[in-house]
Amino acid sequence: MSDAKKLSGAGLRGQSAGETALSTVGVSGSGLTYRGYDVKDLAENATFEEVAHLILYGELPTTAQLEAYKTKLKGMRGLPQALKEVLERIPADAHPMDVMRTGCSMLGNLEAEHSFSEQSQIADRLLAAFPSIICYWYRFSHDGVRIETETNDEQIGAHFLHLLHGKAPSALHAKVMDVSLILYAEHEFNASTFTARVCASTLSDMHSCVTGAIGSLRGPLHGGANEAAMELIQDMKDEADARDVLMGKLERKEKIMGFGHAIYRESDPRNAIIKEWSEKLAADYGDDRLYRVSVACEALMWEQKKLFCNADFFHASAYHFMGIPTKLFTPIFVCSRVTGWTAHVMEQRSNNRIIRPSADYVGVALRKVVPISDR
Amino acid sequence: MSDAKKLSGAGLRGQSAGETALSTVGVSGSGLTYRGYDVKDLAENATFEEVAHLILYGELPTTAQLEAYKTKLKGMRGLPQALKEVLERIPADAHPMDVMRTGCSMLGNLEAEHSFSEQSQIADRLLAAFPSIICYWYRFSHDGVRIETETNDEQIGAHFLHLLHGKAPSALHAKVMDVSLILYAEHEFNASTFTARVCASTLSDMHSCVTGAIGSLRGPLHGGANEAAMELIQDMKDEADARDVLMGKLERKEKIMGFGHAIYRESDPRNAIIKEWSEKLAADYGDDRLYRVSVACEALMWEQKKLFCNADFFHASAYHFMGIPTKLFTPIFVCSRVTGWTAHVMEQRSNNRIIRPSADYVGVALRKVVPISDR
Repeated sequence: MSDAKKLSGAGLRGQSAGETALSTVGVSGSGLTYRGYDVKDLAENATFEEVAHLILYGELPTTAQLEAYKTKLKGMRGLPQALKEVLERIPADAHPMDVMRTGCSMLGNLEAEHSFSEQSQIADRLLAAFPSIICYWYRFSHDGVRIETETNDEQIGAHFLHLLHGKAPSALHAKVMDVSLILYAEHEFNASTFTARVCASTLSDMHSCVTGAIGSLRGPLHGGANEAAMELIQDMKDEADARDVLMGKLERKEKIMGFGHAIYRESDPRNAIIKEWSEKLAADYGDDRLYRVSVACEALMWEQKKLFCNADFFHASAYHFMGIPTKLFTPIFVCSRVTGWTAHVMEQRSNNRIIRPSADYVGVALRKVVPISDR
Repeated sequence: MSDAKKLSGAGLRGQSAGETALSTVGVSGSGLTYRGYDVKDLAENATFEEVAHLILYGELPTTAQLEAYKTKLKGMRGLPQALKEVLERIPADAHPMDVMRTGCSMLGNLEAEHSFSEQSQIADRLLAAFPSIICYWYRFSHDGVRIETETNDEQIGAHFLHLLHGKAPSALHAKVMDVSLILYAEHEFNASTFTARVCASTLSDMHSCVTGAIGSLRGPLHGGANEAAMELIQDMKDEADARDVLMGKLERKEKIMGFGHAIYRESDPRNAIIKEWSEKLAADYGDDRLYRVSVACEALMWEQKKLFCNADFFHASAYHFMGIPTKLFTPIFVCSRVTGWTAHVMEQRSNNRIIRPSADYVGVALRKVVPISDR
């Protein structure tokens, strides 16, 4: 089914851990599909709310369904007072993914999933509430303000930028955020999604599954790549400098984030899409340095290592052009991927067996306890 | 290596997901070992703090090492003010596992793991702080008191009972809690431990790994079995009633918790140990009804279904005899298993590859987006 390289052993690479109807990754002829639709097709011809409806409810919505869904999500942006009080107790120097993890977990205490019949409701609630959670904490801890988390923005991407900047975004910024959320929404059995499915397999609640997934996405081998890409490019002065910096890193065999992929072999289908939007943002921003150095990095990595940009690399410059602090890049990933995570939880529940693998024992042989006085 | 029944497909049952030197489960001739020691041997000849030292540091401690370790853990029982304020905002009707999950996650904001060099320190801190977290919330939300979480009890089991009841426990109760914590400390690649390892494989932080594990242990197919066993036995009047109730459930093909095991085939090595202590507690308690009905259940389930009691079944009566509310049974499991979880995280980090399995696609074939106006 997959053209991914089959490997055995560590990391379960290439081993099937179950079935999914949600997406394909790296299948020949089509890089990434959500429920049968190519992600490029979706990014060009749909909005994130349509994609969320597709992932969570199985089909793209009609106009009436979409309006109803957007109205529903808009009505779920407010945060309970107790959750706000928790977020206010998280210091400004906390890792924003720790904030997301704690916010999701706390919400589970206040709005628990009492029965799986509530699962779609909880999924929609998390999708609607996550931008509020991260922005409420960020603005309180960094700017000392208690923001109103309910806005009239029609879409989640614009809503996020509105909460972050305190004003409605431009049409261009709203559009790019919308596309970005589409690109990050779902990606088969990646580590965070697999975490959610392992948790779901014990028949635990939705908040536990998503809290666990956030914790896994936090890891630098998984969700942190767009932040690492920003750190890489932010001080590059021009194309020549970009080449010098990268060549130095390659010579020192340093890890360079934002290139290559565990599953894709020749390209990441999401890269061309966000790259195009990053170029438009650069023109709008009036200083295209970060776009130009990114293009130079892309060319050099392909020339030297035959490594392609993954979805994260041009996201760095794109987010920066929209005034998003680097430390909030991965939380945006959460605001999008929660659609995929919750859909996978529901899919796991629908045909469940507890995920309980075995291990190869490599420890010491059987031995007897020596009384502590004789040790 | 394992005499577990080999199955393929769903749930990764019987498939190896990596190596471990921490424990064996169901290996012929020895039911459960921690780093080579049989759990029965440890329960008879060691204390929980010795076992925690074994699991986390590789060897049983000398007398001097044990004293130093106990002193260290005693010094880590206090909670930061911000964490207490968060716990005070969690309602009394919250699921106690949601409280544990949120408490662990919040602590990660306040005492973040900045480098893997801090991993042992964080593991010890969680081990020391978890009884404080659950009891602080429980006593505040249920009794309206803000307890002092630092006690002079030498051991974690006694400390937990002290916080819960507001007074130091009897020697018998302290001993049984100690044994109970030994029995639950480690169990190879069960679902919660596997959750922790998947999270660790992204190189995420320790609090994320443990928070995720708590969420998985919360599921009724995993950690909740001792609570379910208590619900089963609590209203049984005597042995005859126990037989009637169980026969009715078997006839209606209802699920009966506390019996059988995913890996063990003939018996759970932990059962005989906790059963013996439950009998002693019953004599001490002065009313042995719950012990007698438990024995009747054990006999009937073997006679009718050839199913044996697992570790959870006699834990129900044992915990009840010590005055522990049923809803705190699974949080005690957390206070013990955090040793195994954190040791597995450290082991995963020491030889890491990101855990990213594949999936079999069973969804719709490639299709084109239809414009919303035509849907």
